[in-house]
Amino acid sequence: MSGTWGERLELSIFGESHGKGIGIVINGMPVGYEIDYDYIRKDMKRRAPGKNKLSTPREEKDLFDILSGVFEDKISGAPIAAIIMNTNTKSKDYSNIQFNMRPGHGDYPGFIKYKGFNDYRGGGHFSGRITAPLVFAGSLAKQILKSKGINISAHISSIGDIEDENFDKLNLNESLVEKLRDKEFPVLDDKKGREMQEKILKAKEEGNSIGGTVEVMISGTPVGLGNPFFDSVESKISSIVFSVPAVKGIEFGAGFSITEMNGKEANDEYHLEGEDIRTKTNNNGGITGGISNGMPIIFKVAIKPTSSISIKQNTINIKDMKETELEVHGRHDPCIVHRAVPVLESVAAIAILDLMLLEGEF
Amino acid sequence: MSGTWGERLELSIFGESHGKGIGIVINGMPVGYEIDYDYIRKDMKRRAPGKNKLSTPREEKDLFDILSGVFEDKISGAPIAAIIMNTNTKSKDYSNIQFNMRPGHGDYPGFIKYKGFNDYRGGGHFSGRITAPLVFAGSLAKQILKSKGINISAHISSIGDIEDENFDKLNLNESLVEKLRDKEFPVLDDKKGREMQEKILKAKEEGNSIGGTVEVMISGTPVGLGNPFFDSVESKISSIVFSVPAVKGIEFGAGFSITEMNGKEANDEYHLEGEDIRTKTNNNGGITGGISNGMPIIFKVAIKPTSSISIKQNTINIKDMKETELEVHGRHDPCIVHRAVPVLESVAAIAILDLMLLEGEF
Amino acid sequence: MSGTWGERLELSIFGESHGKGIGIVINGMPVGYEIDYDYIRKDMKRRAPGKNKLSTPREEKDLFDILSGVFEDKISGAPIAAIIMNTNTKSKDYSNIQFNMRPGHGDYPGFIKYKGFNDYRGGGHFSGRITAPLVFAGSLAKQILKSKGINISAHISSIGDIEDENFDKLNLNESLVEKLRDKEFPVLDDKKGREMQEKILKAKEEGNSIGGTVEVMISGTPVGLGNPFFDSVESKISSIVFSVPAVKGIEFGAGFSITEMNGKEANDEYHLEGEDIRTKTNNNGGITGGISNGMPIIFKVAIKPTSSISIKQNTINIKDMKETELEVHGRHDPCIVHRAVPVLESVAAIAILDLMLLEGEF
Amino acid sequence: MSGTWGERLELSIFGESHGKGIGIVINGMPVGYEIDYDYIRKDMKRRAPGKNKLSTPREEKDLFDILSGVFEDKISGAPIAAIIMNTNTKSKDYSNIQFNMRPGHGDYPGFIKYKGFNDYRGGGHFSGRITAPLVFAGSLAKQILKSKGINISAHISSIGDIEDENFDKLNLNESLVEKLRDKEFPVLDDKKGREMQEKILKAKEEGNSIGGTVEVMISGTPVGLGNPFFDSVESKISSIVFSVPAVKGIEFGAGFSITEMNGKEANDEYHLEGEDIRTKTNNNGGITGGISNGMPIIFKVAIKPTSSISIKQNTINIKDMKETELEVHGRHDPCIVHRAVPVLESVAAIAILDLMLLEGEF
Repeated sequence: MSGTWGERLELSIFGESHGKGIGIVINGMPVGYEIDYDYIRKDMKRRAPGKNKLSTPREEKDLFDILSGVFEDKISGAPIAAIIMNTNTKSKDYSNIQFNMRPGHGDYPGFIKYKGFNDYRGGGHFSGRITAPLVFAGSLAKQILKSKGINISAHISSIGDIEDENFDKLNLNESLVEKLRDKEFPVLDDKKGREMQEKILKAKEEGNSIGGTVEVMISGTPVGLGNPFFDSVESKISSIVFSVPAVKGIEFGAGFSITEMNGKEANDEYHLEGEDIRTKTNNNGGITGGISNGMPIIFKVAIKPTSSISIKQNTINIKDMKETELEVHGRHDPCIVHRAVPVLESVAAIAILDLMLLEGEF
Repeated sequence: MSGTWGERLELSIFGESHGKGIGIVINGMPVGYEIDYDYIRKDMKRRAPGKNKLSTPREEKDLFDILSGVFEDKISGAPIAAIIMNTNTKSKDYSNIQFNMRPGHGDYPGFIKYKGFNDYRGGGHFSGRITAPLVFAGSLAKQILKSKGINISAHISSIGDIEDENFDKLNLNESLVEKLRDKEFPVLDDKKGREMQEKILKAKEEGNSIGGTVEVMISGTPVGLGNPFFDSVESKISSIVFSVPAVKGIEFGAGFSITEMNGKEANDEYHLEGEDIRTKTNNNGGITGGISNGMPIIFKVAIKPTSSISIKQNTINIKDMKETELEVHGRHDPCIVHRAVPVLESVAAIAILDLMLLEGEF
Repeated sequence: MSGTWGERLELSIFGESHGKGIGIVINGMPVGYEIDYDYIRKDMKRRAPGKNKLSTPREEKDLFDILSGVFEDKISGAPIAAIIMNTNTKSKDYSNIQFNMRPGHGDYPGFIKYKGFNDYRGGGHFSGRITAPLVFAGSLAKQILKSKGINISAHISSIGDIEDENFDKLNLNESLVEKLRDKEFPVLDDKKGREMQEKILKAKEEGNSIGGTVEVMISGTPVGLGNPFFDSVESKISSIVFSVPAVKGIEFGAGFSITEMNGKEANDEYHLEGEDIRTKTNNNGGITGGISNGMPIIFKVAIKPTSSISIKQNTINIKDMKETELEVHGRHDPCIVHRAVPVLESVAAIAILDLMLLEGEF
Repeated sequence: MSGTWGERLELSIFGESHGKGIGIVINGMPVGYEIDYDYIRKDMKRRAPGKNKLSTPREEKDLFDILSGVFEDKISGAPIAAIIMNTNTKSKDYSNIQFNMRPGHGDYPGFIKYKGFNDYRGGGHFSGRITAPLVFAGSLAKQILKSKGINISAHISSIGDIEDENFDKLNLNESLVEKLRDKEFPVLDDKKGREMQEKILKAKEEGNSIGGTVEVMISGTPVGLGNPFFDSVESKISSIVFSVPAVKGIEFGAGFSITEMNGKEANDEYHLEGEDIRTKTNNNGGITGGISNGMPIIFKVAIKPTSSISIKQNTINIKDMKETELEVHGRHDPCIVHRAVPVLESVAAIAILDLMLLEGEF
């Protein structure tokens, strides 16, 4: 299904960039939790464009309206439906691309899959804008997980070749979670962060774009989430992470670099810290045999440079079946990595909450 | 669910390393295809251990017995059930590890999840041996896909820091598919392959282990498989790839290195080759907007060093809740990367066949 | 999941009787179909209350607003989201029932399941009002099926002990479909229909209610829908029919009366009509071995008397855990059987469309 | 899927009547339960044919072999796989029916669906024999539910027009459960039972067959299983009950006769029995609003006369596309209602256990 995810926590997202509205229906959220609307609004603002010159000037307030599932500000048990009406849609910006397939976008495979009936304006249902409802759901999931002692955080790990520090793989300080949540450009090393921002602005000037990586960390998860083989924690997380547009890779723990270790180095030896069983290293990113081992779950995600650029590109016109050149002069993000940070926190929260519900944790 | 995967092609695997037998039930295979048993046996032999000194000496013939779903050597439409009886099980080798949790393994999270009731011998249901039924299913899927012009191949891309060449991202030569399928140690550059094998044997001598990467390529897929957001091609493939034990990362197309490109470089520009729409580069690995664009689908997988090593390790005894030392003297693989090659081809085939069935392609 | 149904056609409904709005998200509708809005509005009006004295005077216009999935009046391939805002909600009518559990309703099991957090006003998410979005989806499905030569119709088969004629089990005349669709009280024998209406009004006068049965018929389905065992056509249809509130029974073909036939009578013998294989009788209701055999699919549904009555009833107060008496003076339907007719047509259409999509029919 | 059912308890059945073997893979059974093999063997014997002249003389011992998922006689958490090898297969009995489609059977829709590739011998995968693995799973589920105070029982409610008494809808005596389990012909009133058996033998003499109904009762279920709308308890149970071959109807509580009651009669008023909330009647069969209300869950199932009869029937030959006559002289059941009793107990147990697992009850 194009718009449904989850086993016990089930999400259906909908919406097109230039349609009437976008939204989400969520089944399975644990009942009785009081909703902190400001917390959600803050996460949605972290994702929203138009805040500064690092993003597209398309300003969307992303004000959500909850139609059902919440009664007297608490989760009622009925499906939660939240909608966000589209307000700032300039359709004319996109009119020239109906048949000129934008490289790197879903235009061409979408045209074939939907036989030309899909809404091509602003990327239609392929738009990154559809991640806003995911942030609504994920922010709610984060609140609930927090009440169980589970914290989730993410930071920009690199922009192009400029790298931030990594999280301490053994511990996630709660104050760091809050600090990163407050940052407009969430990095651990702000000096590197400034370099990254310069790199983004330079790409913008050139009508080009730039990618990067995001590191996500989840602390406080119980031992025993996930399954060997199908529905491993890695399967679960990756399946929803690859739902986020522009993601092209994911690695857990030491990731690809674990392949250059030997077994003795890679294995995370167990020891006791008081009554807790913990590991001294966390190369496996909190997951062994597909199952959470109680250490923080850590993964890094590769995000490609935004496909929308204003530099002239070669492409084909699908109607005429001819080669052509394309110049797109809409409102673009020169980089979406910083906006992806709350989205990736959100999908991590959704995955973990589903895994918790599958274990009957609520 | 721990043992079920797929939407239209649905797999249930079962088995424990030292139980009576392992196997798979497959629903949804397209009817009428004649089964090439030798083709399957060859793929299963590629995965099987005991062939040479690069693998565990545990010799398992992996002879499968088809109980249902095949009538007069053709797929009948009923669920296909194939079983492989376990023959060469030396349980005593593993008896000392019942309560001493092997680092890097699923022992500890499994013990907690299954409340100590799981079969601990040889890793039980966590055993890499359970990938044999996946190869049965995947080899069958490969045959069917081949009849539709879809070819799937994989090679060892690196062992430790020794790297093989990469596939040509634009074309997969069918003779190369066969050539790699015939190689005992499937690499593109055999000189590098010999270095890799030396590295593996060195690790073996030290009682240690080594990891690596595998590159997988799928050519001939139609445009339009997958979905934007949930159930993207990347989601689908990654969810089953992370079902393969020891996988810690996956990247599509240029993968993590795409984050160091700019948009102009990363976007794969379209052009016409005769009447075919193709791209000049394939940094997106054949997938844009979550949907196949007709170019070869390419991904690379990180496989960690085998967790089972004979070097002494620190760990805890879960019964006594005490720290202890562990020496495992069973029959180990110093490296499983070469054995993972047919497994990864198999899960790729399974994912693609499910995606094809979802589009009503059969 | 409480609010999701389907395999290839996937529905998520949401809403509470007295919340902001209700609606549905539909994934998997075949692309390119032009939507006949009037056709849908007519079906929704057939279900809507407030038209005459046979129904609750709560008047709801059930005006739907499509937020996404439709582009230039055609199905675009993106998830279809339709919402209906609640307008005529008199919450005070229901305030006395928060803790007094109404017999026959979901109040008590709902209170336990949702730990008292569910919206109790007007039945909350248990309200029959939530069937309105199902009619939206089903009416759309009926349009699409009609274009494939599949017709779906239903009529009131009985109210209390007054019985209508049955459909001719071998043929469904298209003009009959339209005729029934136009009737405010859809029966085959209008004389019986008048008796039924009197019976309903009599129950209303007494503050009581009455039930009945509905017969549903689907003609033109291809041979081969469904599966033996799990996911039989009967499984599929019954699983969604029992989603409709107040349904307590379903029978296919001759149903319970087939148990009084012998095999020779019950078996529907095959013969040729021109080049078509048909049966001379249709005791199996178009389904043998769980699979459609090309004859019309026919089933009958038992609908219990509306639980909401104004006669005094004994019950318990869940807060005080004491026995009490209950008098509910809201706006009630003395009978919902006639309003259930378009709902049952709708769920039949949804089930058949999902079965068709599973066979790759679109 | 043709062979998979369930959300948290997931079953995959396989097998063909005259293939090598049949079986089941079960995921999600709660770990640690000790298996009572004799209990399972007894249930399987209740279903097995060949015991007396009321059934087909085909004698199948239905000896199951557990390949995985059970360790030291306890459920280990890995998928449980059980196989039953086919031993007594006389294929020649069925050879004449390859192209002559047996009325009332799945032959014709199966031939179309599987394009003629399905194993036609003995009904292939359509065979009632495939219910044996369901009894294995259901018998295991019954054991586990019993340990939670949930009892499940069933009896023959009618054969043709001869009716047994009904269960007391308010209470299920545990000794009655055992008594019925011990009866070769499980009825409440043995005098009626003898009449029924005579009726079956008379049908047998005539080469004809006869149907009937089965009443199933489940006591001790907690309040709160199931969901309003999709996945109501009725949806869940009916979806698996209609997986049992020959079932053509299901009704809960008072079922179709509730349509002749008025609301005051039909509503089950609540009262207190000590600290328990119970109802004085049980017309809703333990389910209101789709959710269990703590009263016994009761349903009745219509089973059609066995399709296989030896009387001459008219049919078509699918190869020649000609009308023909058919006489089947294999080994037939003149009635399967008594053999369906343990099967229906089993699927009830499977459905209830899945609903319990969905509520995190284990």
